[in-house]
Amino acid sequence: MEKFAHGGDIYTEKRNWLDFSANINPLGLSNKAKKAILNNIDNIVNYPDPRATKLRFAISQNYNIKKENIILGNGAAELIYLFFSHMRFKKVLIVAPAFSDYERAAVAAGMETEFLFMRPDNNFKFPWNEVWKKAKNYDCIAFGNPNNPTGTLVELECIQNFANKKDSPFIFIDESFMDFRCDKAVYETLALASKSKNLFTIRSLTKFYAIPGLRLGFGVGHKNLVEKLNTAKDIWNVNLLAIEAGAAALQDEAYKQNTIDLVENEKKYFYYELQNLKIKFFPPTVNFVLCVFKNINTAKIILNRLREREILVRNCENYPGLDGKYIRIAIKSHADNEKLFTALKEIYANNEIKCYIEKE
Amino acid sequence: MEKFAHGGDIYTEKRNWLDFSANINPLGLSNKAKKAILNNIDNIVNYPDPRATKLRFAISQNYNIKKENIILGNGAAELIYLFFSHMRFKKVLIVAPAFSDYERAAVAAGMETEFLFMRPDNNFKFPWNEVWKKAKNYDCIAFGNPNNPTGTLVELECIQNFANKKDSPFIFIDESFMDFRCDKAVYETLALASKSKNLFTIRSLTKFYAIPGLRLGFGVGHKNLVEKLNTAKDIWNVNLLAIEAGAAALQDEAYKQNTIDLVENEKKYFYYELQNLKIKFFPPTVNFVLCVFKNINTAKIILNRLREREILVRNCENYPGLDGKYIRIAIKSHADNEKLFTALKEIYANNEIKCYIEKE
Repeated sequence: MEKFAHGGDIYTEKRNWLDFSANINPLGLSNKAKKAILNNIDNIVNYPDPRATKLRFAISQNYNIKKENIILGNGAAELIYLFFSHMRFKKVLIVAPAFSDYERAAVAAGMETEFLFMRPDNNFKFPWNEVWKKAKNYDCIAFGNPNNPTGTLVELECIQNFANKKDSPFIFIDESFMDFRCDKAVYETLALASKSKNLFTIRSLTKFYAIPGLRLGFGVGHKNLVEKLNTAKDIWNVNLLAIEAGAAALQDEAYKQNTIDLVENEKKYFYYELQNLKIKFFPPTVNFVLCVFKNINTAKIILNRLREREILVRNCENYPGLDGKYIRIAIKSHADNEKLFTALKEIYANNEIKCYIEKE
Repeated sequence: MEKFAHGGDIYTEKRNWLDFSANINPLGLSNKAKKAILNNIDNIVNYPDPRATKLRFAISQNYNIKKENIILGNGAAELIYLFFSHMRFKKVLIVAPAFSDYERAAVAAGMETEFLFMRPDNNFKFPWNEVWKKAKNYDCIAFGNPNNPTGTLVELECIQNFANKKDSPFIFIDESFMDFRCDKAVYETLALASKSKNLFTIRSLTKFYAIPGLRLGFGVGHKNLVEKLNTAKDIWNVNLLAIEAGAAALQDEAYKQNTIDLVENEKKYFYYELQNLKIKFFPPTVNFVLCVFKNINTAKIILNRLREREILVRNCENYPGLDGKYIRIAIKSHADNEKLFTALKEIYANNEIKCYIEKE
């Protein structure tokens, strides 16, 4: 497996496979977003609005942040690279296991990176003690909240305390899965990032609004930082359909509520079925579940058996801090989740791998 | 006018205005591209193919370059920023007047930039003599070919000689309008860039294929450079619809030929009408024409009078090396071009501005 390979790569397999390897809203496109796209196809002969006024307004309203604190991204991923390319950090501390692009972007920008590992024996809890101890040796600390793939959540209050400490390093937070939480006020840092000089928070809109193919994200930071990063990219980085779809989706209140309800219900279903199958997992905080098997063989067999059934899950062996014993499963629609568990039950009932299961 | 403002900003005006300020293929979307987009809207719930296999193949075939020499961009503009962000240049020489993002990107990357001006009294000819003399003082020289907004063309042979010279600086060439030429073999550097260690050429696919709202471009360079730049961006930077539309459009041979024919015919029409009106212009080499008036007042009045008629042209006052006397006009469909010249004739016949015209 390649070091920086991701989930969601349905192109090496067949397109109609059931993909639990990418954590995308199972409701699919919001009807409002789809309508906005269809209404605007003929407009792609024009440049996107360089100010993306419509989208910027929708984000500003939806997240209660000022426009001057918002930078728009061609996906949140673009903003990771933009941020690291244009900050003059020497050493970056990454709380791991984490989305691999924090490391990849920092390394591409010539920075030294180190991992601070959250540990499975501590349920991948955020290591605040070590962070406070080690922070002074780094210019920047980067982490996801909720973290992918562990689901780790970090409270705003803890982040605020750390950000306020004298000589805190710069804090980079990826909140790409935050919208899936109904209690996000306890965790999200958008307001804090707007007024802090040492905090930059990014958000993906592709996961919650199911538009990864269209690319859309944004970042929030102090207006000086946002201005600096805005001058370091072209003005048309968000395509016209993403602007239209994003602006429409952000106003689709029913879609938002249905998404949160669905994920909430399906989380319970996962709990039930995973416990039933005696598969060890870390309780999901958003729309994915990290599972761990006692040995690599079991995980690999399950991955292969699922693939035979045209089902993809995320092999976590290329996450530093994890290994081939871990798989990440996206929470999808109930019908799809049932198919997954039907397959898993079949696999578990299969004598061929029984020997491995019994050891666990 | 803002320093880095561009054409094509129809969002400050009304959307249904006639826009001659952006140089987009007047044929609009290729039918094949439109079909590809419509067929793929439901697929945007998936990530784009991180290898963009389909598009990479189409580019490789169409331009006769190896896949390993191609880097895909979210528009050519993204690649300008990516390139300058990750090259360690100190001083960049920009042949001007030029697309402003070469300067903006180099400055954002902390580089010193200087302009080498092509001069109207020399018909904006490429200043090879000065380039050869000055080159040793710079790490990189950047220019457009054909150049926007002057239309200046530089022959491959001259570029090759320069690139081969001992201690040549790095050469950055923007060939975003090259596809509009039927004789591009005389000018284009894609093959040269593939095998050179000091040449990077970018191409927009948004102008010729009329998809600026979707964003699509590519760069060609030595495989080591391409690899380096690829690691400095996220793997999904080209959205799924751009991949599909681009791959389809590149195979639409009739569309390509029709575009070249149309621009060729309309160039002649522009010649005829501009000469008729005694407006001074620099002969167009691709799908836009640079016009110059004897004084700023005339240009400004014409711009305003066109705006009153809901027609946009590009005010060139923010191009270093030009001023408010210059306007750039895109070549559009014959019907649209006729509307433009009907408007211009009305304006010229208008007593209100006659006093200015007579002085020219």
